[in-house]
Amino acid sequence: MSEYRMRIERLQQKLLAEGLDAFVVTQNVDLYYLTGSMQTGYLLVPAAGEPRFFVRRSVHRAQEESAVPVEALGSFRSLGQQITEAFPALGSAGKIRLAAEYDVLPVQQFLRLQDLLPHAEWADGSLLIRELRMIKSPYELGCIREAARLIDEALEDALGRLQAGMTEVEVMSGVEHFIRRRGHLGLMRVRGYNQEIITGMLGAGEAAAEPTYFDGPAGGRGLSPASPQSASRRPIGAGEPILIDIGCCVDGYVIDQTRTAVIGELPEDLERAYAVSEDILRRTEGMLKPGTPCDKLYTQSVQWAKEAGLAEHYMGFGGDQVKFLGHGIGLEIDELPVLARGFKYGLEPGMVIAIEPKFTFPKRGVVGIENSYVITPDGFEKLTISREGLLRL
Amino acid sequence: MSEYRMRIERLQQKLLAEGLDAFVVTQNVDLYYLTGSMQTGYLLVPAAGEPRFFVRRSVHRAQEESAVPVEALGSFRSLGQQITEAFPALGSAGKIRLAAEYDVLPVQQFLRLQDLLPHAEWADGSLLIRELRMIKSPYELGCIREAARLIDEALEDALGRLQAGMTEVEVMSGVEHFIRRRGHLGLMRVRGYNQEIITGMLGAGEAAAEPTYFDGPAGGRGLSPASPQSASRRPIGAGEPILIDIGCCVDGYVIDQTRTAVIGELPEDLERAYAVSEDILRRTEGMLKPGTPCDKLYTQSVQWAKEAGLAEHYMGFGGDQVKFLGHGIGLEIDELPVLARGFKYGLEPGMVIAIEPKFTFPKRGVVGIENSYVITPDGFEKLTISREGLLRL
Repeated sequence: MSEYRMRIERLQQKLLAEGLDAFVVTQNVDLYYLTGSMQTGYLLVPAAGEPRFFVRRSVHRAQEESAVPVEALGSFRSLGQQITEAFPALGSAGKIRLAAEYDVLPVQQFLRLQDLLPHAEWADGSLLIRELRMIKSPYELGCIREAARLIDEALEDALGRLQAGMTEVEVMSGVEHFIRRRGHLGLMRVRGYNQEIITGMLGAGEAAAEPTYFDGPAGGRGLSPASPQSASRRPIGAGEPILIDIGCCVDGYVIDQTRTAVIGELPEDLERAYAVSEDILRRTEGMLKPGTPCDKLYTQSVQWAKEAGLAEHYMGFGGDQVKFLGHGIGLEIDELPVLARGFKYGLEPGMVIAIEPKFTFPKRGVVGIENSYVITPDGFEKLTISREGLLRL
Repeated sequence: MSEYRMRIERLQQKLLAEGLDAFVVTQNVDLYYLTGSMQTGYLLVPAAGEPRFFVRRSVHRAQEESAVPVEALGSFRSLGQQITEAFPALGSAGKIRLAAEYDVLPVQQFLRLQDLLPHAEWADGSLLIRELRMIKSPYELGCIREAARLIDEALEDALGRLQAGMTEVEVMSGVEHFIRRRGHLGLMRVRGYNQEIITGMLGAGEAAAEPTYFDGPAGGRGLSPASPQSASRRPIGAGEPILIDIGCCVDGYVIDQTRTAVIGELPEDLERAYAVSEDILRRTEGMLKPGTPCDKLYTQSVQWAKEAGLAEHYMGFGGDQVKFLGHGIGLEIDELPVLARGFKYGLEPGMVIAIEPKFTFPKRGVVGIENSYVITPDGFEKLTISREGLLRL
């Protein structure tokens, strides 16, 4: 309960600072973060005073789960009246300023909210709530560590079974079966529009190097144009890099890590590129402490890739390169901060970041490594626990 | 190619009928439906003339996949200029009317589009595109039949392994492993905000009867408040109804079906309720032909449930009841038409509908059956092929 009270209070401080009267929260993950319940409804958080969760269904279940007082929502039409009754200050004649999650809220639902509360002026609260979620509590770190433990076990299980001739999706389905039985949600939640992740990306050789729409450094061929990313039906061969970029979602929290494996030996230049990715990760770790600007971590890594003569292969190839080194993780896989140009945040204790230097070689494969870290007052702690180095099978 | 040309032409007819100048398509599934590619970008479909797909990434992959001409998108900022260059009529001084998918497009991206094309007047095109997708082609029916075949195999495999003491998620993970290795995407796409489906719902006894946020008749306990639906960690016991509401997504298309199983025997009243669900399904089949209003199928089924003395248990229990009998399926699990009040569509050949009469008994479980059907000129064809009847193990 104190966990949720703290989150609400921090949100209220931000509302006050922005001159906003209240936040109307609608997205499932944000609702869960602020109430402890993912039931369908509208959470109203006033800048001061007690919030209220207007629930459509299941009211009974929300009452059991929510740390915030629950009120049954008669119908969407009644929401405006219920809000003004519960929060008389918002119902008064004067202009009020409300925030909503513009980054995920569909236009249709936003227009309906505008209709319900015609005297309100609306503002984009996306950044506000994403910045709130950027700093993890000890409880949240515990959840992420649990996910890290599970994905490590799944990786070792997969490495023990992986053989030449198995298809990418066969190996990936084994990973998924392993984690799902042990509490994985079945997918990893992603906030970005049109983005979807099941369990990450497992791919080898030319199939792994195929670019795709997904906002990550390694796309993968996927199963068909209707799911054009991640594992494909291509058999994995000896002597080619096998990129195992996997995670899981346990009790809502995700972990993200990457290892590179090979059956036999890698060609010398790819093995060297893998070593460079580990080197970039080690040197980046040296900068992981409070105060380091997020964008600097990215631009510095680009410089290192360039010095290694691998600039063109860094984080995708050529026109399909992505322009970041890492991303926050938590309840979603694409949280703040992003390690990219334009992200001026200084690192802060409690930030959890997946850092993933990778190199793509068209027609040949992708090599790289990824760990997830929490920033501490003194520097960092590594959350992913899987063994490092090129994994030879 | 002719498949995509036909889809575009039908969309253009609808644009003309609505007095719209063009549709700016942004959602991954709609992009795939209209171009054959799911790469990230903006598809502009003018009311007359050739459409163009402005692609951010991967351009190369979109060029290989898309039936619509592809143009590389320099940056989002350049999109406005690229559109007016490609479609001079839209760039002229007069007012233009554009449609977008208001039901899925986030507010943030919509505001950016409005900024880019300041002289445009925008309209909600959601219904237009969902109505277009409502009627399936022979090619699409083939995809759905393939998914139906796979889920039938998975069901038989699961029934062969199901034993008392196995947890719901253990059985579900077995189903998922079976279908994933054979080409299941890993999840079933859903259009509704905040809705997510992995493989449907598998639950038994009291856990299955727990209500949840999900817009379906059977929620399920789920793994935790962070994934509060579908399979839980509860062991399945003898003598309780096991609801197996599963589907898969193959080459983009989903199937949806439900069977009820029991280890041993069901209590008499639950067995009778199951028989009523089959009876409602059979009687509903008798109404499946072109012209029958969708809402009538629902209201008639409510009447039958009432006559059987089961009104309170129908499609959820008490305040957690959902008010529909079925839903369209295709690339998404929640397509049109919906068999519910307010949906005045008459059935038409090519509509594909999952029909799912179910009864919920709090603390005891859920029983029911669900088949997917295509409407034909003469009546219907059943797409799901799994054996029916209460499945005794």
